[in-house]
Amino acid sequence: MKKHNFSAGPSILPQEVLQQASEALLNFNNDNLSLIEISHRSPPFIEVMDKAKNLVKELLQVPKGYSVLFLQGGASMEFLMVALNLMKIDGKAAYTNTGVWAKKAIAAANNLGEVAIVGDSSDKNCNYIPKGYKIPEDVNYFHCTSNNTIYGTQMKEFPTCPTLMVCDMSSDIFSRKIQVSNFDLIYAGAQKNMGPAGATLVIIKDEILGKTGRKIPAMLDYITHIGSRSMFNTPPVFPIYVSMLTLQWLKNLGGISAIEKINQEKAELLYNEIDRNQLFEGTANKDDRSNMNVCFLLTDNSKETLFNEMWNDAGISGIKGHRSVGGYRASIYNAMPKESIQVLVDIMQKLEQN
Amino acid sequence: MKKHNFSAGPSILPQEVLQQASEALLNFNNDNLSLIEISHRSPPFIEVMDKAKNLVKELLQVPKGYSVLFLQGGASMEFLMVALNLMKIDGKAAYTNTGVWAKKAIAAANNLGEVAIVGDSSDKNCNYIPKGYKIPEDVNYFHCTSNNTIYGTQMKEFPTCPTLMVCDMSSDIFSRKIQVSNFDLIYAGAQKNMGPAGATLVIIKDEILGKTGRKIPAMLDYITHIGSRSMFNTPPVFPIYVSMLTLQWLKNLGGISAIEKINQEKAELLYNEIDRNQLFEGTANKDDRSNMNVCFLLTDNSKETLFNEMWNDAGISGIKGHRSVGGYRASIYNAMPKESIQVLVDIMQKLEQN
Repeated sequence: MKKHNFSAGPSILPQEVLQQASEALLNFNNDNLSLIEISHRSPPFIEVMDKAKNLVKELLQVPKGYSVLFLQGGASMEFLMVALNLMKIDGKAAYTNTGVWAKKAIAAANNLGEVAIVGDSSDKNCNYIPKGYKIPEDVNYFHCTSNNTIYGTQMKEFPTCPTLMVCDMSSDIFSRKIQVSNFDLIYAGAQKNMGPAGATLVIIKDEILGKTGRKIPAMLDYITHIGSRSMFNTPPVFPIYVSMLTLQWLKNLGGISAIEKINQEKAELLYNEIDRNQLFEGTANKDDRSNMNVCFLLTDNSKETLFNEMWNDAGISGIKGHRSVGGYRASIYNAMPKESIQVLVDIMQKLEQN
Repeated sequence: MKKHNFSAGPSILPQEVLQQASEALLNFNNDNLSLIEISHRSPPFIEVMDKAKNLVKELLQVPKGYSVLFLQGGASMEFLMVALNLMKIDGKAAYTNTGVWAKKAIAAANNLGEVAIVGDSSDKNCNYIPKGYKIPEDVNYFHCTSNNTIYGTQMKEFPTCPTLMVCDMSSDIFSRKIQVSNFDLIYAGAQKNMGPAGATLVIIKDEILGKTGRKIPAMLDYITHIGSRSMFNTPPVFPIYVSMLTLQWLKNLGGISAIEKINQEKAELLYNEIDRNQLFEGTANKDDRSNMNVCFLLTDNSKETLFNEMWNDAGISGIKGHRSVGGYRASIYNAMPKESIQVLVDIMQKLEQN
């Protein structure tokens, strides 16, 4: 049976990408060797790495003066690396607290300097995006999370920032237009809109580095990885290759402006049903609703068993909400076809008619 | 044309493993979803993680009191984590310097405490394994590299150690019997005998941790990863899955004692030819020759173009030596069939007859 994969991450990837990756495992580049058994310093893989970076630059129109890196360790390692590379000794940084991952980023920074929480939505279980806060001028950098996977909230605008602006875009990068020049450092785990778990994308303005006064271990120093072009040690070959394929798929589709329009339509289809159908309610503040993760509850818990049976029978998977919010979470990343969302909407309507 | 893949890493994997991995990318667990698009916290992936760990324990007969972890960042991240987790404040550690990677491990430790180099083969371009050295009793730990990929040397015995023994086994783990109880921490990048690049195996004696007096960032603290069973953040799903398949393949083959015998025969086949054939000479000290990486030179450089043409025509790849040694390096990891080595030996004999 065809599956409709609403998983929050690792998450759905384009079917043609999976097909190409599957073939490359047996015969990469028509060379009768598997992608994963050749040297990362061989010309065919260097071409993959370069192509992946160039696609990032092209799709996001990354300006000159920025480096694109593929690292390991996920966003969690970036929480540490951002603070190590940007927080000065006895320094201070400003963070917004908008969810579980923001909180982990704050914890990593707290060990290295002072953290000012300038916006905080934890008073309402992170169901909104803080606004109207002022970022102090005397901090080394400001850090925010553009999309909160667990809570289904998304920053629709970014604040004016008098200092370096750092953003964790793990769960919405490549889903909408962003002005990279407004940011000094962007990072994202691959496993939502880009590829399989195991690679982390970092886009960084070179000139911000080397100013903390701190000795940074080589593996955690962005300067190391820029200097060695993401090849300081063996990179995660397979996740980078699949990311390259996904970015190529996105480019063929028309790039960011095309996918942004599709994502908007997909999100509206589902949110409109949640708002129309009295059996459901959204959990996030309407103005801050994420176009990637749609969180909702049943208003009538007696329908739960039936609803679960219905979507399960329809081949829907990965739709259970995170334990800290409950209910349901439909993650509708770039690769999610509108048809799968329609299947879910149809079930919500059938439940109403039942 | 069939390829004979002598690449040093990422390197050859069993053909049946590649086939299974290729299929799992399209349909994992007969669930019509790709392995790389399901949640790492879903029961099917938790089963993969548990199975991979249990195979490590079974194959290496890991005693009680040790944890098995799958992390990210390769051996290079372990260079840092070992020192952070074991070097006390104002502490001291003993290292052997036997090659490029050992030197990088030393550099990472040097930033955190004092390093005593107790054995050093850099006087002869690392073509031998230092022996007869004494490890001081007052160091926090001793660190060695069991196999030096670049130089083709391998420790045949491990020293008696009056302190914690730490070993980088990246390029020979699972190739021969080891007594895990003699070690306190073993680590290995996956991309030689285990799987694709992007996962790092760590086997660690729990009781040695938490004794440095140092505050360790969560992501770099082994205690974090033991407590969260290698799921502190999203693990590298695909490399762990392929590692699990490779370990299962090894178990089916008869485990470590079976592969050790095969590896011994494979290495002898090639070393015997190098010693017999006057056109070739090995670069490593005979007593210290690696059964994984066989490094050799042509004695007559005028034959170079012809030899290169001959092995290339036979489908041999990845045999060029590392720039710091020159010549040739035939990496003959677990998955390398004896037949491929015979192809190389035949060419060496044909060159002699030419």
